[in-house]
Amino acid sequence: KDSAHLPHTSVGLNKVKRVTVICVLQDINSNMWNMKQLAYGALARRANQIKAELRQGVRKPYKEVIDVFRGDLHGAGMKPLTFVRQVLAACVYPPLINSNNLPLDVRQRAQKELGRCVGGSVGSYSAAAGIPEIVHSISEFIKRRDGGIPSHPENIYISPGSQWSISNILNVLVNREASPRTGVLIPVPCHNKTVLSITQLGAVTVPYYLSEEQAWALQVEELQRALESAKGVCSPVALYVINPEIQQVFIPVIRFAWEKRLFLLVDELYQDCVYGENCEFVSYKRTLSEMGPPFSGTVELASFHSVSKGFLGECGLRAGYVELVNLDPAVMKHIHTIFSKDSCAPVLGQIALDLMTDPPKPGDPSYPLYKQIEHIRAVLVHNVKRVHEVINSLPGFSCPPFEGGLFAFPRLNLTPKAVQKAKELGLQPDTFYCTRLLEEGGVFTSPGWEYGQKEGTYHIRFCIAAPQDIMEELLRRLSSFHMTFMKDFS
Amino acid sequence: KDSAHLPHTSVGLNKVKRVTVICVLQDINSNMWNMKQLAYGALARRANQIKAELRQGVRKPYKEVIDVFRGDLHGAGMKPLTFVRQVLAACVYPPLINSNNLPLDVRQRAQKELGRCVGGSVGSYSAAAGIPEIVHSISEFIKRRDGGIPSHPENIYISPGSQWSISNILNVLVNREASPRTGVLIPVPCHNKTVLSITQLGAVTVPYYLSEEQAWALQVEELQRALESAKGVCSPVALYVINPEIQQVFIPVIRFAWEKRLFLLVDELYQDCVYGENCEFVSYKRTLSEMGPPFSGTVELASFHSVSKGFLGECGLRAGYVELVNLDPAVMKHIHTIFSKDSCAPVLGQIALDLMTDPPKPGDPSYPLYKQIEHIRAVLVHNVKRVHEVINSLPGFSCPPFEGGLFAFPRLNLTPKAVQKAKELGLQPDTFYCTRLLEEGGVFTSPGWEYGQKEGTYHIRFCIAAPQDIMEELLRRLSSFHMTFMKDFS
Ligand SMILES: Cc1ncc(COP(=O)(O)O)c(C=O)c1O
Ligand SMILES: Cc1ncc(COP(=O)(O)O)c(C=O)c1O
Repeated sequence: KDSAHLPHTSVGLNKVKRVTVICVLQDINSNMWNMKQLAYGALARRANQIKAELRQGVRKPYKEVIDVFRGDLHGAGMKPLTFVRQVLAACVYPPLINSNNLPLDVRQRAQKELGRCVGGSVGSYSAAAGIPEIVHSISEFIKRRDGGIPSHPENIYISPGSQWSISNILNVLVNREASPRTGVLIPVPCHNKTVLSITQLGAVTVPYYLSEEQAWALQVEELQRALESAKGVCSPVALYVINPEIQQVFIPVIRFAWEKRLFLLVDELYQDCVYGENCEFVSYKRTLSEMGPPFSGTVELASFHSVSKGFLGECGLRAGYVELVNLDPAVMKHIHTIFSKDSCAPVLGQIALDLMTDPPKPGDPSYPLYKQIEHIRAVLVHNVKRVHEVINSLPGFSCPPFEGGLFAFPRLNLTPKAVQKAKELGLQPDTFYCTRLLEEGGVFTSPGWEYGQKEGTYHIRFCIAAPQDIMEELLRRLSSFHMTFMKDFS
Repeated sequence: KDSAHLPHTSVGLNKVKRVTVICVLQDINSNMWNMKQLAYGALARRANQIKAELRQGVRKPYKEVIDVFRGDLHGAGMKPLTFVRQVLAACVYPPLINSNNLPLDVRQRAQKELGRCVGGSVGSYSAAAGIPEIVHSISEFIKRRDGGIPSHPENIYISPGSQWSISNILNVLVNREASPRTGVLIPVPCHNKTVLSITQLGAVTVPYYLSEEQAWALQVEELQRALESAKGVCSPVALYVINPEIQQVFIPVIRFAWEKRLFLLVDELYQDCVYGENCEFVSYKRTLSEMGPPFSGTVELASFHSVSKGFLGECGLRAGYVELVNLDPAVMKHIHTIFSKDSCAPVLGQIALDLMTDPPKPGDPSYPLYKQIEHIRAVLVHNVKRVHEVINSLPGFSCPPFEGGLFAFPRLNLTPKAVQKAKELGLQPDTFYCTRLLEEGGVFTSPGWEYGQKEGTYHIRFCIAAPQDIMEELLRRLSSFHMTFMKDFS
């Protein structure tokens, strides 16, 4: 009767440490131990409290919180693209296809997209890799983008956000029985969910530092150093890079990957977000292909993109894709199986991917309005300039020029007094800064240590994709807060 | 220069078997080896070919393929709920909120949902666990459903489909370093993606057979046998069950889980699909709670639900939730981290979950139309009766009465000649039957062996949630095909 409280010798559940619960910390997937709890949790909770207080009429020095802690255009106040939303609405509610309130090309496009859905509904499952016609349209987009270099639909998989595909490609690469453990080279700073995915699989992150002095450029010597540092610790099999990047590094990085037999994981989510003058996005795949043999046919590469980060900014739809290059067909089979596991990506997100990769053309009724994206680009270019100007004008604050992406990652030169105060509070110094900035300035940013930074340096990170007026307000609040903070702890 | 072709002694990439590629089958996550390739792949490809041929005007004995191979209401021809689609459309394209073409409560609801989204857009990320107000509304729904038993929002996580949460809860439970390996008890037949998730984690499935003679009921003695069978093979930590199930088994199953220290994974996706007379869905959590101590406070349980399988049938939106009961707070922290990894579930799916759990009420303008769900229920009840009647009237074909779920899983008594022919073709006998049925009858079903069946028995599986006329057509085609098939191989 009381057998639950006897040790089980037969089926071996003898690791149970507490009698009342089955699943205690000691028993679970031990890789969970290695997963850093994300610290923005506490900041996010406080931001939500403050928002609720403001709604209830509590008086603060600001009327609303400016939410720029993640790369989220709509969250930061940017407007969605009308064409995209109109097509999606008509797909969701097909009677709109017959309504004269929507432009003709919108209605035709919705009709076409529904024709691709099983049973003509966005409510049915699609094929595991995605709706075949959309996968095809993505491959055409890649081919156009890369100046004609072929792209094969069989190598493309659509997933619920690109983070999902990054995790799942890693899942295939990480051999859990390898000894020493599998390692993955990652940049510092790095998107923290990628770090989470790696550690959760039981693999080891091998950090390489981007050069802050050179606008956060990647340096091949540093890759070399990082790889050396892994000796005896783990066995690196992959190199994760974030592109846009200065093109000069592509060839040496690919050579490095080839020499060291590293699988290239290329995060190309920010391919639309290139700001430098005369700069144009070039994909790793294009460079690889142009390098010719032996590289072009051997270096294994996965390139990620999504509807979250371009000018669509549709993070909430959760759809991205990965293109795989040079993979062994036997491995591709496993990639297929793993992408089948969760059925399919959200169908509306898949349709948004189609709209992103095959937008209205000159002559289409929606074409003039689709130029909203040029407005968004202009706003981003302007914001980048303003953030750079304002931050560099503040004492103890600096920001290298930036050429791509959605984030500012300026450096804080905190005074010893500020660092001391943070320590007393049990906080990382930059978390302390962000907490005060949120509390006093109503600006929700995140601390640099969450993404990694050189020992003894401090940063904050915020998204630059906010409408101009919000960005100006943000910079005003940040400047005024910063001056007070520096004075308080001088 | 040619260093890529030398063995690497330093960083240890010495497992590479072929010189041209880095990632070969031998190197990757060894659990991938254990993942069965899903066989419906070939059937699905053929179904798509046939559909394309029909579109091109190729003449066949049928004009369209009836697609019932998965549990997909819209895929099988059922219509989405108008209220759900109207609210979602207005959330996607907010100008519709001001249009008089949509009912007032739809517009108000859309406004309310958008107010819960960061930046007022469905294009922004939500909190990792889901939009807090929606998580709260789910907990209220569970409480009402379970006759007042409390449900706490902190224990609920929204995910992109329930399959995702099943995988991720398993990910926390499976200790990859355990020796013997972790085991999970699963029913036979079982949803094949769950099997995939388990093997992909390196855990072992421990099958228990449902009793076909008793309308596929679960029998506790069989659980006992299965557990015994795991001795020396693996260490079972969890029991996966699919509910609706006859209520008589709940108490013994929970007792069993308690005694054997098994974590209960309860798939309750089909909670709306209960057909037996005087039958009503009862959740495992409710029974557990009513059993009182020591059970109610100790048995760990995860219950899954989703917008895919109820009367919403919105598989393509990809949203489900899990409620966790009696978990150690330290383990809950890891659950939180793993749910944070892929950012969040699709926001439109989250809103659909809200509509499902908090539908229009009497007096609301949309209430009369929302009764579409009663029509759907009536169709399912009718279909269940018809499938049962027709199949049991055919020689060599039988189907126990069924009380819940979306699938018929009738048994085929194949003749030795048919089995022989299949063997010659290198096919499983039921795959052979399904292939011919697709080819000759234009009905796309799946073979029983994909879900598991007793050695020497054969089944086919198909979704019963099709409109009545399509179901009648399906039964006509199936009957006529079956008679020919049985004659051909008699
Ligand atoms: C570098 C990087 N990669 C991947 C992602 C994940 O994006 P998605 O929304 O497509 O999962 C993000 C999101 O912020 C990111 O910054
Ligand atoms: C028993 C069972 N569980 C889970 C799922 C997955 O559903 P979802 O679409 O919510 O991931 C299915 C889908 O067919 C199923 O049949």
